[in-house]
Amino acid sequence: MTDVAPQRGAAGPLVRLGCDAQMPEGFVIGSTQDVKAATGCTVVLCEKGAAGGVSVLGAAPATRETDLLRPENAVDVVHGLVLSGGSAYGLDAASGVMAFLEEKGRGVSFSGMTVPIVVGASLFDLNVGDGSVRPDAAMGYAAAQAAATTTAVGNVGAGCGASVGKLLGPAMSMKGGLGAASITLSGVAGTDTVTVSAVVAVNALGCIYDRAAHLPNQPIAGVLDPSQRTHGRLHVLDGLQAIMRLAATSAADEDGAGSANAMLGANTTIGCILTDARLAKTQAARVSVMAHDGLARAIDPVHTGFDGDAVFCLASGSAGEGAQPDVIGAFAALVMELAVVNAARAAQSAYGLLAASDLV
Amino acid sequence: MTDVAPQRGAAGPLVRLGCDAQMPEGFVIGSTQDVKAATGCTVVLCEKGAAGGVSVLGAAPATRETDLLRPENAVDVVHGLVLSGGSAYGLDAASGVMAFLEEKGRGVSFSGMTVPIVVGASLFDLNVGDGSVRPDAAMGYAAAQAAATTTAVGNVGAGCGASVGKLLGPAMSMKGGLGAASITLSGVAGTDTVTVSAVVAVNALGCIYDRAAHLPNQPIAGVLDPSQRTHGRLHVLDGLQAIMRLAATSAADEDGAGSANAMLGANTTIGCILTDARLAKTQAARVSVMAHDGLARAIDPVHTGFDGDAVFCLASGSAGEGAQPDVIGAFAALVMELAVVNAARAAQSAYGLLAASDLV
Repeated sequence: MTDVAPQRGAAGPLVRLGCDAQMPEGFVIGSTQDVKAATGCTVVLCEKGAAGGVSVLGAAPATRETDLLRPENAVDVVHGLVLSGGSAYGLDAASGVMAFLEEKGRGVSFSGMTVPIVVGASLFDLNVGDGSVRPDAAMGYAAAQAAATTTAVGNVGAGCGASVGKLLGPAMSMKGGLGAASITLSGVAGTDTVTVSAVVAVNALGCIYDRAAHLPNQPIAGVLDPSQRTHGRLHVLDGLQAIMRLAATSAADEDGAGSANAMLGANTTIGCILTDARLAKTQAARVSVMAHDGLARAIDPVHTGFDGDAVFCLASGSAGEGAQPDVIGAFAALVMELAVVNAARAAQSAYGLLAASDLV
Repeated sequence: MTDVAPQRGAAGPLVRLGCDAQMPEGFVIGSTQDVKAATGCTVVLCEKGAAGGVSVLGAAPATRETDLLRPENAVDVVHGLVLSGGSAYGLDAASGVMAFLEEKGRGVSFSGMTVPIVVGASLFDLNVGDGSVRPDAAMGYAAAQAAATTTAVGNVGAGCGASVGKLLGPAMSMKGGLGAASITLSGVAGTDTVTVSAVVAVNALGCIYDRAAHLPNQPIAGVLDPSQRTHGRLHVLDGLQAIMRLAATSAADEDGAGSANAMLGANTTIGCILTDARLAKTQAARVSVMAHDGLARAIDPVHTGFDGDAVFCLASGSAGEGAQPDVIGAFAALVMELAVVNAARAAQSAYGLLAASDLV
């Protein structure tokens, strides 16, 4: 784990904050991708099952098994999670994860059969690389096989074909990716430490902000006009500047369907909070709501009509009882914010798109 | 309107940003309060009706007529809105607003009778001032009578008894209040200007941050320890520091119900986006979701298990067709963030609570 200066909530030994993701106890994670086609998937396996919740706050989601996660519904254990590219087609990757888990005998037993509970969400990357190739069952199976205790970040898994800053169309967008961050807290649940990790595939309509970089209104990745330079430096438009320009373009366009607008569907940020705290199903749902606050702090605009933003929370319970859900939720928002920034910073230029690392 | 330097999305004549709330065309607003009892209500009247939506993302809400606002339900017009103190008791204030509107003949006609549609949400201020006095029908009626095109801010209306930074109990909390902000955009909907305003009563468990003040990790109001000073200055704990201290206290407390915890229920931030853009009911709901991103940017932690955070959106349509909901939503998040900051800055010390203005 790469330690970074703990900017928030820090008090000596209480906090350890890292910008890669060491998975909390009870979880392993793996990614596969088709680099040429620019798509992939990221799979989390819950080794002894986990309590799960989800909050879908984007208007254009593609999800699987999210009804099962509603607090009033019966099943209260999750065995795996898939974040994938491929838009709704990519939901197929979960089938491969189910097959992998069935072979291991992991799932809920019904009438002598085992049904693994695999939840998931997908993002739209069909306009990057080869849109005819989508994450499928084989890719999901391979990601499950590759699962380990840490994750790669950048142009991998569900982030392989991800892009950001798409308000003015794909030609002005930048590379997104997969990001992760985690924090370990002590003194919050008796004698145990508790770890809260975030994994996120960032494919947002909006721009990405790093509040720790002390440039509050200057995105680190977003809407880029490659033809415009100030003192030789490329300039990333602020999210609100970009949406004003989009609005002006649309208003001037009589049928309201300008070329920029045509690409507005190609977005969505999907992620997961993983923790070894013990949470009830209702509490996991609450943490998933609070984790969206991390998206709000790092992405602007976010939760739009053209994003399908969805955040899961899985809690393994390995760290035992005693952690308050609001403590987990408050830090879930923090690590989700940092994971979004990590995704943008770890992304590398590809498919004709520049990345944040190209602008430094 | 007090113009302020437009920090975000600014491009000369496109944007006018103010930190009081001139209501958009089609709305008037009024507040009444019982200063001694420390409670009150704020009423918005939609002069020709408005499309409405709501998003409730806190876990402990008190609301009225929010089911009617669900996009799949029938009624698609709102005549009034009430934000009130008094916890769930304060929902009674809407009865007075209904009576006021019935007298004016404003409402939906059913079988020769008129039923005004008045939506609302309440916050918990019963632990400040006299908890036996709550906003009632008479107070709602008086606020409706007083409605005008601008609103007062600070210790008024639903913000009269509001407080913030309650993670470590009421003794360390600070004064909250009612806040407002608005922005006027041109060039986003043909030739018209569009105004987006936010009104919010800030009574958050968490701390309040002003990103424009370039102190990203230093709250302007929050958890205050009056006994601790650094170089003579009072010190406001960061939200995450405070929640870590709360967690440590609770973990050390065998039954998990320390005195700090006992006050955790006394929170909630409630607000409304008002716009003269024409939005469908579904679009108003989307804007209400996006406006919560403004809460996330100005309050930390927020949307906790002990906040009942609810944001409405009302759209009068006076400015005509053509504004994209995502443009309205992106700026709704901005004005909601600024309105939260305005609430904290406009609050004045009262009821034994210091305010942000006391620390400057």
